[in-house]
Amino acid sequence: MLDKSCNTNGQCKKIDNGQTREQKPWNVEPSTIGNNCINPIRLTIEKLFSKSVTEKSIISLAIGDPTLYGNLNPSQESIDALVKVVQQGKHNGYSPSMGLQTARQAIADFISVDGAKFTSDDIFICSGCASSLETSITALADPFKGQNILIPKPGFGAYKTLAVTINVKVKSYDLIPEKNWEADLNQLESQIDDKTTAIVVNNPSNPCGANYSKQHLQRILDIASRHRVPIIADEIYEKLVYPGKKFVSLASMETDVPILVCSGLSKSLLAPGWRQGWIAVCDRAGVMTEIRRILESLGQRINGSNSLVQGAIPEILQNTPQSFYDDAAAKLEKQAKVVYDRLSHVKGLTPYMPEAALYLVVKFDLEKFPDLQNGLEITKQLLNEESVFCLPGECFEMTGFIRIVITSPCDVLAEACDRIAKFAERHYVE
Amino acid sequence: MLDKSCNTNGQCKKIDNGQTREQKPWNVEPSTIGNNCINPIRLTIEKLFSKSVTEKSIISLAIGDPTLYGNLNPSQESIDALVKVVQQGKHNGYSPSMGLQTARQAIADFISVDGAKFTSDDIFICSGCASSLETSITALADPFKGQNILIPKPGFGAYKTLAVTINVKVKSYDLIPEKNWEADLNQLESQIDDKTTAIVVNNPSNPCGANYSKQHLQRILDIASRHRVPIIADEIYEKLVYPGKKFVSLASMETDVPILVCSGLSKSLLAPGWRQGWIAVCDRAGVMTEIRRILESLGQRINGSNSLVQGAIPEILQNTPQSFYDDAAAKLEKQAKVVYDRLSHVKGLTPYMPEAALYLVVKFDLEKFPDLQNGLEITKQLLNEESVFCLPGECFEMTGFIRIVITSPCDVLAEACDRIAKFAERHYVE
Ligand SMILES: Cc1ncc(COP(=O)(O)O)c(C=O)c1O
Ligand SMILES: Cc1ncc(COP(=O)(O)O)c(C=O)c1O
Repeated sequence: MLDKSCNTNGQCKKIDNGQTREQKPWNVEPSTIGNNCINPIRLTIEKLFSKSVTEKSIISLAIGDPTLYGNLNPSQESIDALVKVVQQGKHNGYSPSMGLQTARQAIADFISVDGAKFTSDDIFICSGCASSLETSITALADPFKGQNILIPKPGFGAYKTLAVTINVKVKSYDLIPEKNWEADLNQLESQIDDKTTAIVVNNPSNPCGANYSKQHLQRILDIASRHRVPIIADEIYEKLVYPGKKFVSLASMETDVPILVCSGLSKSLLAPGWRQGWIAVCDRAGVMTEIRRILESLGQRINGSNSLVQGAIPEILQNTPQSFYDDAAAKLEKQAKVVYDRLSHVKGLTPYMPEAALYLVVKFDLEKFPDLQNGLEITKQLLNEESVFCLPGECFEMTGFIRIVITSPCDVLAEACDRIAKFAERHYVE
Repeated sequence: MLDKSCNTNGQCKKIDNGQTREQKPWNVEPSTIGNNCINPIRLTIEKLFSKSVTEKSIISLAIGDPTLYGNLNPSQESIDALVKVVQQGKHNGYSPSMGLQTARQAIADFISVDGAKFTSDDIFICSGCASSLETSITALADPFKGQNILIPKPGFGAYKTLAVTINVKVKSYDLIPEKNWEADLNQLESQIDDKTTAIVVNNPSNPCGANYSKQHLQRILDIASRHRVPIIADEIYEKLVYPGKKFVSLASMETDVPILVCSGLSKSLLAPGWRQGWIAVCDRAGVMTEIRRILESLGQRINGSNSLVQGAIPEILQNTPQSFYDDAAAKLEKQAKVVYDRLSHVKGLTPYMPEAALYLVVKFDLEKFPDLQNGLEITKQLLNEESVFCLPGECFEMTGFIRIVITSPCDVLAEACDRIAKFAERHYVE
C-alpha cells in the first residue's frame, strides 16, 4: 500500500490539531539481527534466476526438496494418518511446548537403537529440522560472551545463517574430498578454542552425501570429549542411506559427549512442507539439565509446531513400512548413478558419488576452464547457456564445485547431464 | 539417557588411547538468549499445577485455546479444504519464504477493507501470530543498539518474552480500566524515547477484551506519527468482536505511520494448532522497503510454516461463511456474560465485561481480602480450595486481578463462577 500524498522517503504534510506542519522524514532502520540473517541459497536462487534468458526449458536441480518432481512422495500411511487427524478434529488446539506426549514417545521409539534408548523426555518437537538447529544453536552458543560454534566446510549454509543471525561466531573445520568427505581431524581439533560451545556434525551430509563410519565418528567424539565441547548432530538424512550402506547415529556410540540430535520428517518421510522436526537429547553424562530447560522455554516462543501433524506422528512412524525408506534410498542411488556415470567421462569434471541423501557435488578443474572463475560463474553460465540450474559450491563454502540435486527422475537427470557435458566441452581448454 | 558410569556432574573416567585419566567435569552452560526466554504464562501454569491437591474436578480457565472444550471448532469448510490438500498431495514440499503466492493473495483479499487494500506483496506468512510478532520485533528493534519497544500494560506476555529473549528492552504504557482499557495517551507519549523503534498495539486485546474506537486509534496514530515510531498491530482477535460492536483495523485509518499488522488463523478460525499467521505490511509513506527485505530473510531462517495449511488457506478464507465468525462471537459474548453476571454481585470483586476475544479480567479489592496479597496468591488458593484454575494478573503485568478464559460452555463457566464466589465470600473481610 502506498499513499500518493507522501513522497517516497515518507516526507508528508501532516495535519495535526488542525495545523499543517512539515515533519522530519521517516527513517525505519532494519535491526542488526535482521541484517545479519542472510541465506546464501535463497539469495543465489533469486540472483541467478533473474538472469536467465534462454529458450530451452529450465531444468532446476537446485532445491533440496524431494517432492518437487512427483517421483518421491510421503508414504500413503502418512497421508492417511494425517487425514484421519484432520477429520477427527482432535488436534486443532495448541500442543505443549515440548510437543505432544504421544508424538514424542513415538519419535523416541523410532530413533532408539541398541545402545541408545531414548524416552519421550528426551524429545523436543520443533517446526522442522531448521528450527531444531536454530533452537540448539541458540541454547548452546552465547553471542553476548563472544562464543563460537564449529561447522563443517563444505556444509549446509543454514548453520552459518542461524548462528550469525544471532551474532554467534562460526569457525569451520575442513572435510576432505579424497577421504569421502571425512573431517580433517587435526584441523578440526585445532579450531576449538575456549569460546567453542558446540561442534555441528552433519551425517549423512549435505552437499557431499557422505555417510561416516563408526571409526570416524568415534574420533570426532574423542576430540569433543577431550575438549568438553557438546555436539549438535544434524542427522536429517538418516533414513536416506543408499542400499548396502549403514547409517550410524552419533548417539548410538559409547560416549560421554552430550549430543543434541536434530532430525525430522522432512527428508526421511519425504515431507519437508509438513514442518516437523525434533531435537533428541543424548546426555549420558547427565550434564544437560539446564539445556533441556532452555530447549523447552525456547520452544515456547512461537507456540510450537503444527499440532495436526504432531497428532499424526505416532501412526506415521509406526505404520510406514521399512520398504518405504528402502525404496526411496534405492531410487535416489539409481538417480545419483545416472549423474555420476554420465559426468565421470566428461573432461575436466570430477563427480563425487554420494552414499546417502539428495545431492551430488561435481568439481570443475578450474585450470581447464579459464573463462569460468568459480562455482558462481559456472552455475550462472550453465543456466544462461543450457538452462540447467544448479547451486554453486560457494553456497556451501566450497569453490570450483557445483551441487546437483538428484531427486528428479532419471530421464530428467540424463538430459541435464548431457547439457552439462556439452557446456563443459564448450568451455574446456587443454 | 543417563549412563551409570558417570556421576551426575559428568565427571567420568575416560579411556583414551587405552589410558585411563581423570578429566575436568562437563560444564554446559545455557546461553543468555536461552536464559532470557521466560514465558510467564507457561511458568505459572507449571508452578501452580504442581501444587494442586483437592478432590474436586479441576476446571481450567487458564489457556487461551478456544478448541479445548469442543464447543468452538474450526469451520467445516476449513477441515474440508485441508483434507483435500493432504489427499491431493500437492503441497508436501517447501513453500517460498514469504509463503505460497495463492495463500498470500487470499489473505490480502481477506483483510482488505475500504481505505486499506493489501496486495499479496504486502503479506508475509509465518508459523502462527507468535511467529509474526517475533519476526516483526526482531526486524524493527535492535538489541545491539540498546533499542526498546513500547508494550501495553496489562498485556499479552509474549511481547515482553519475545523482546527480552533477544535482549531488546521493553517499556510499558498503561491501559486505563475505567476507560475500557484505552491507552493512557499522555503516559504512552512520555515513554517514547529516541531508542524506541516500535509501539505494540493489541486490539482487540488479551487479557482485557477491549475493542478500541476509531477516535482512540487515531490518537495513538497521531502520537506514533509525531515521533516517527512504527506500530506493530496485534489484531489476532479481529474476528472475535461481540455482536453489535465493530472492529476497526489500524491499517484502515488514514495515516502515514508504517504498520506491521500481525494476525492469523489461530483465533478467528478457531485453529491455533494449525500454526498459521501473517504479517501484513501497511506502509502508506513507502518507508518500509528495507524492513520488507528483512521480513523475508527472517522468514528463511526456519523454512516457513506448514505448507499443507498454506495450500488450504485460499479455500479456508473464501469458503468459511460470515455466519461462522458471527456464531463464534455470539457464543463468546454469551459465555462472557455468564461470568460477568455471576461475579458482578460478589462482594469485593469487579469483573470487566469484554467487547471481544476470549477473556474476562476480574479485580479483587485487595483491602477486603487481607489474606490474599496479589493475583498469584489468589489463583493459587483458588486452585487449592476450589479446583478452579485461572491465571494471575501478574502474567499480564497487573496486580490484584485474575484472568478468566471464557471459552468453556456456559454450564462449566457457571459452576466455576459459583466456586469463585464461594471462595471470595470465604476470604472477604469487611
Ligand atoms: C543438512 C540439513 N539439515 C537440515 C535441513 C532442514 O530441514 P527442515 O526442512 O526439516 O527444516 C536441511 C534441508 O535442506 C539440510 O540439508
Ligand atoms: C494477543 C495475542 N497475540 C498473539 C497470540 C498468539 O497467536 P498464535 O497462536 O497464532 O501464535 C495470542 C495467543 O494467545 C494472543 O493472545
